[in-house]
Amino acid sequence: MQLDGVRVIDLTRIISGPFCTMLLADMGADVVKVEPPAGDPVREQGVKVDGLSWYFASFNRNKRSIEIDLRSQEGMDTLIALLKSADVIVENFRPGVMDRMGLGWERLQAISPGIIHTSINGFGDSGPYASRPAFDFIAQAMSGFMSMNGTQETGPMRTALPISDLISGNYAALGTVAALYRRKETGRGEQVSASLLGSLLSFGAFVSANYLASGTQPVPTGNDHPLVAPYGLFDASDGVIAIAPSNDGVLLKLMAVLGLSETLNDRKFANNAERVRRRSEINGLVNEVTMRQTKAHWISVLNDAGVPCGTVLGLEDVYQDPQVLHQELLLEVDHPGHGSVKMVGFPLKFRNEPCKVRRPAPELGGQTDEILEETLTTMREERVERVER
Amino acid sequence: MQLDGVRVIDLTRIISGPFCTMLLADMGADVVKVEPPAGDPVREQGVKVDGLSWYFASFNRNKRSIEIDLRSQEGMDTLIALLKSADVIVENFRPGVMDRMGLGWERLQAISPGIIHTSINGFGDSGPYASRPAFDFIAQAMSGFMSMNGTQETGPMRTALPISDLISGNYAALGTVAALYRRKETGRGEQVSASLLGSLLSFGAFVSANYLASGTQPVPTGNDHPLVAPYGLFDASDGVIAIAPSNDGVLLKLMAVLGLSETLNDRKFANNAERVRRRSEINGLVNEVTMRQTKAHWISVLNDAGVPCGTVLGLEDVYQDPQVLHQELLLEVDHPGHGSVKMVGFPLKFRNEPCKVRRPAPELGGQTDEILEETLTTMREERVERVER
Repeated sequence: MQLDGVRVIDLTRIISGPFCTMLLADMGADVVKVEPPAGDPVREQGVKVDGLSWYFASFNRNKRSIEIDLRSQEGMDTLIALLKSADVIVENFRPGVMDRMGLGWERLQAISPGIIHTSINGFGDSGPYASRPAFDFIAQAMSGFMSMNGTQETGPMRTALPISDLISGNYAALGTVAALYRRKETGRGEQVSASLLGSLLSFGAFVSANYLASGTQPVPTGNDHPLVAPYGLFDASDGVIAIAPSNDGVLLKLMAVLGLSETLNDRKFANNAERVRRRSEINGLVNEVTMRQTKAHWISVLNDAGVPCGTVLGLEDVYQDPQVLHQELLLEVDHPGHGSVKMVGFPLKFRNEPCKVRRPAPELGGQTDEILEETLTTMREERVERVER
Repeated sequence: MQLDGVRVIDLTRIISGPFCTMLLADMGADVVKVEPPAGDPVREQGVKVDGLSWYFASFNRNKRSIEIDLRSQEGMDTLIALLKSADVIVENFRPGVMDRMGLGWERLQAISPGIIHTSINGFGDSGPYASRPAFDFIAQAMSGFMSMNGTQETGPMRTALPISDLISGNYAALGTVAALYRRKETGRGEQVSASLLGSLLSFGAFVSANYLASGTQPVPTGNDHPLVAPYGLFDASDGVIAIAPSNDGVLLKLMAVLGLSETLNDRKFANNAERVRRRSEINGLVNEVTMRQTKAHWISVLNDAGVPCGTVLGLEDVYQDPQVLHQELLLEVDHPGHGSVKMVGFPLKFRNEPCKVRRPAPELGGQTDEILEETLTTMREERVERVER
């Protein structure tokens, strides 16, 4: 697998950090999840089945767990022993905590020369807000993201997923692997960090480019594409369909299928600017046609014609969808003692060495002894090497 | 820089692929953007200043451009010559297009042994929907994402950013770098792919875990956290603030600052389940207090108390925010002939070898001669080597 032989010491908890280390573990890294005696709080969050949180199971697959109380000297000694044989340490503490733990950059490099230190934080590791408590909802508000979401009527609206946590986890994984690659060239370690604020800001680059070029602030437009019409959700006879003609060529195909080609000869709808101005009128014309047939009909004929379209699925339908199943985006993982656990599959596909579930999410401290034993063996071998030299 | 010496041949256009290759270029890869005579369509999209699309400028920084007509034999010969010295090829064609171009897996490996082929597509490279035209709006609809967004009143709602494009671009970059790392161990190439559908599905894993465990479909809850109250947007005397007490400990701090500690002794609000049941009542009590003081007051005292909070910023305020500026999340890039272009900075921070802008986004075919010359030189050197052997 891609990250075979890479050992990650994982001090993270909740979602952004565990998501980052899940991505590394899915690609083959040996992720050692260091948990306090109370465990990652996510163990107690979300819906449980037979005592197991499926949210925890999903984000911690492929990891091993060691229980260490980092508030004790003995615990810190154990962590330091673990770090000696590690390639990467990942944490999502507030900036400054690693320094206060005595694990600043110089010290980390002294303990484990070449180690990569990956950090996920709220606002970046310096600057006026660096020490503020962070949370996804706040990052959505402060990054401008919320101001674009929703409609004129609803006002600023969050999106339902903690996307700044997930994006920053994704960036942190990318930066970690890039630093591992670089280390193969230079032998040197690196400090990598991603913030909730910066990550979400980077995802708005397309809207920001237009704002920075024009000075005009974007307004929330709900399901309307701000620059294209017709576009959005339309009624079929048995429900709603999404149609997204991405350019004029695709629009011609859509209107041909709908029998509305002549509409585009009308001066009122002759170009996109006019259509956006009369959005409700042109959307209404499209809707009058789509409502006469079923969703299945339109999905079939529009896709055949090359017009991006689809149904609006709830999760019940998503996890029965033939494409989702074909792509193995729903996994069943055997958790001894907890039965079979369903979770989302791997978004990243490799032809030769695919991601796989090698082990279920660990019990709290489930591999404490095994990991301590490995660490002792490594330390013993190093000692023998030193003596023999 | 992290990806110094990595050469990427970039056949992508629009947003998902160019975002992926921008991430690689920002970390130091030499990204050769192969453009048809008409150029990447994004050159003509978004707001232009002095003839330059700032959207294009933002997503194509640090790349070089070569103009090649891939519909001609000569063009394909040039591409194949370029591939010989490349480490990575990235494309966002529909599945099957690379095969039809004569660039299937075996052929690519024959041209350039060990090359990494990265692909971004709509629904995955096989399965019943593999050949459907794809678009972010459709992926939002079909992944279940739209069904969670918005409110009960608005119904399913997209988010304003093309997030499935961006997430898949991010995953593709991660997979590419992981395959580059692996190649250092094995010498072997890899095929990497990420789909809009799978990428967005993976971001919903937290909500999906609860659905899969309980069978209960999530409903859109707007700015309300489905499981926590009080939480959300509240009125200050001069505008709106976001407050996100993430757990009971933080809630105690919030209520203390607001002078509402006693409220939690009331049986009606004694635990989270009761508070969620009386969400509007408890939110109303909080709001009665917050509306008496300014945003600045609450941001200061709540952050000091350890309660995540912030203002809802529009982009105008985002790009004047001291933290955003301190973190260099707003860059000014000199584009000769087009003045200074503003764009979002680097979300990924490296201590030793940081991302940087080495060159502005290229003119169409701006480096055609330079790249052809390099390629000829490489081919000549290889020929000499073969003769000398």
